[in-house]
Amino acid sequence: MSKPKIVVIGGGTGSFTLLNSLKNHTKDLTAIVNMADDGGSTGVLRDELGALPPGDIRQCLVALSDSSKTRDLFNYRFEEGTFKGHAFGNILLSALEKMTGSFAEAVETASEILRINGTVIPATLDNIRLKMEWADKSVILNGERVIDAESFRHDPRKARLSLVPGATPNPDALAALNSADLIVIAPGDLYTSLGPLLIIDGIGDVLCAAKAPKLYVVNLVTKQGQTEHFTVSDHADEIERFVGCHFLDYVLFNDQKPDRALAARYKAEGAFLVKPDIETLDKKLYKGIAGQFLSPVATKHGAEVGTLPVTRSLIRHDAEAVARAIMKAYYAL
Amino acid sequence: MSKPKIVVIGGGTGSFTLLNSLKNHTKDLTAIVNMADDGGSTGVLRDELGALPPGDIRQCLVALSDSSKTRDLFNYRFEEGTFKGHAFGNILLSALEKMTGSFAEAVETASEILRINGTVIPATLDNIRLKMEWADKSVILNGERVIDAESFRHDPRKARLSLVPGATPNPDALAALNSADLIVIAPGDLYTSLGPLLIIDGIGDVLCAAKAPKLYVVNLVTKQGQTEHFTVSDHADEIERFVGCHFLDYVLFNDQKPDRALAARYKAEGAFLVKPDIETLDKKLYKGIAGQFLSPVATKHGAEVGTLPVTRSLIRHDAEAVARAIMKAYYAL
Repeated sequence: MSKPKIVVIGGGTGSFTLLNSLKNHTKDLTAIVNMADDGGSTGVLRDELGALPPGDIRQCLVALSDSSKTRDLFNYRFEEGTFKGHAFGNILLSALEKMTGSFAEAVETASEILRINGTVIPATLDNIRLKMEWADKSVILNGERVIDAESFRHDPRKARLSLVPGATPNPDALAALNSADLIVIAPGDLYTSLGPLLIIDGIGDVLCAAKAPKLYVVNLVTKQGQTEHFTVSDHADEIERFVGCHFLDYVLFNDQKPDRALAARYKAEGAFLVKPDIETLDKKLYKGIAGQFLSPVATKHGAEVGTLPVTRSLIRHDAEAVARAIMKAYYAL
Repeated sequence: MSKPKIVVIGGGTGSFTLLNSLKNHTKDLTAIVNMADDGGSTGVLRDELGALPPGDIRQCLVALSDSSKTRDLFNYRFEEGTFKGHAFGNILLSALEKMTGSFAEAVETASEILRINGTVIPATLDNIRLKMEWADKSVILNGERVIDAESFRHDPRKARLSLVPGATPNPDALAALNSADLIVIAPGDLYTSLGPLLIIDGIGDVLCAAKAPKLYVVNLVTKQGQTEHFTVSDHADEIERFVGCHFLDYVLFNDQKPDRALAARYKAEGAFLVKPDIETLDKKLYKGIAGQFLSPVATKHGAEVGTLPVTRSLIRHDAEAVARAIMKAYYAL
C-alpha cells in the first residue's frame, strides 16, 4: 500500500463514509472537520457546557479507528434517562475538553483512546455559530440547527454565509493542507456543513494556493428547500464561491440511475438525484469524473446497514467505488 | 519485583488507596468489588438506566491504571448541565453495559481502554440492594444509600444484613480467591461496603476454605452513628461474622496518634480513631499488626491531595506504609 497524504475536508456522515473507505487505500489520512454543528446531542453539550461541537469530530474519529469495540462505544446513544439521545463519544469529547480546557487536547486524547490511524483536526477552535444573510438583507438566520431545519425561500447562492463572532483557522489544518498530496472535499450539506468550514478566514487562501490536486465529491441528491434543482456544476460553483477561487481540479459525481422503486423513495424524502450537467461541466476549469456511485444497499430499495452512525437518508454513496475513483484520479496525474 | 497474586476485597476509596500502593509491590493484583453501591452518580445511573453500580468499579480501575490522562478522565465529574455530578467513568461503564448487555464485558472493555495492570472483578453480576433487619425485626432499611445516611439506633452487630433479591457470586471472583497467594480485606464501611460483598452466597465459604493467608486492614476511624466506639477487634469480629468463620490470619491496624489540631478535626467529623484493644486482640486466632499508618497528609492538618477520587474524610491511611506492612507480613510467613 502506498502512502499519499490525503486530507479530507468535511462534516459528519459524508466524511465518515469517505474516510472509512479511503483508509484502505492510504496510510496517511487526515480529516479537517466542520465546527459549526449545533444540532442534537452536540447542540445540548454546546448549550449546557459551553463545549465545542463534538459530533462531527466523533464521526471522523470513529471512521479512522480499527477497534470495533471502541467504535461501537463512541457511537452508542443512550436510550433513556438523563443521557437519552447523547452519543457516548460526544460526552467523552466534552468531558475531555472541560477537564483539560482544550478541545484540541480532547481530540488528541480521544484519538489515543480509539487508537485511530490518521489525524482528526477541528477546522477552528473558536466557538462559532452560523449566520446567513439573504440578498435583500431581510432575513438573517442564526445557527446551523436553525438554518438546517429551514426551507430557504431565497436563492442561497446569493446569500452571504458567515461565522459569528468569527473564526481563526486551526494552524494544524492549514499545515495539513499545505503538506497534502491530495485534498478531497467530502460530500455534505453545502450551507450547514461544508460552507461553514470553507469560509473560515485563511482556509480559502490556503486551498487556492495549495499545490496538491483538489477533488470534490458531489452529493448524490439535492436537499429539500435548500439545494433543489442544483446540478453537479451548481454544487461545485458554490464550493468555489465559499473558497473564493477556482481551485478544484476534479469534480466527482454519480451518473448511475436508481431503479424505479428506489427513485420513488427518494421522491418521498424530497430528495432528487443531482443532475450531471455535462455540457456546462465541459466548460469548467476542473475535470468531471462520472461514475456508478450508488451504494448497492441503496439500490436494494434502501435496506439499512449497521456501519453508518447516522442514518439520515436511504441514498448512499458506494464508498468503496468512490475511494477507487479518487485513487485512480490521483494516480492518473 | 516479585509476583505474589494478591486479591483485594472491598469497595471504593479504601480499595483505591490500597490498590494504588500495592501495585508497586506486585505485578499480579486483583480487585473484587462491592456491587451494592447506590449513592450519588451511581445511584442515578442505577435508577435511570437499570445499570449495575459503576462507581466502586471505576475507582478500582483507575487505581490499577498507569495512564494519568485516562485516570483523570475516568474521575472527571461534570460541573454543570444535564451531566452535573456524574463521574465520566461511571457514564462509560454504564454505556458499555447498556451497549453490550453485559456488565462483565463492560468492565473488561473499560480495563482495556484504561490499560490497567491487574484485574477488576465485580463480586456479583446480580442487580442487588441492601437490606438491614434489626434484632427486634422492627426496622428494615432498604438500599445502601438509605442505610449509609442513617444513624443506627440499634446495635448493628445484632442486625441481619442481606441482599435483595439475593446474589450469586461472580465465578471469576471465586476463582481469584481460590488461586490467590494473599487475600486482603481493604478498609471500608462495614455495613454498606464490605458487608454487602462478604455476605454474597458462596464468598464466605471460599474465604473460609482458601489456602492463602487473609489479612484485614482495619479502618482508621469509627463512623458516626454506626460503628461508634468500635475497637479494632470489634471491626474484625464483624468481618468474620459476615464471612461466617474465623478466617483472618492478620489484622492490621493503626496505633499512631494524630496531633491535637487534627484530633479536633476528627471530632468535628464525628469520627474517632479506632482503638486497638490489645488485650482482646491477644486472645484472638489472628495476629494483630500495629503500625504508624496515618497519612502524612492527614497529620499535616488535613491538607488535601489531588490523587484521591473521593474526599470523604481528612483522615487517611499512609497507603505506602500499609502496603509495606502487608508485604512484610506476607514474606514473614
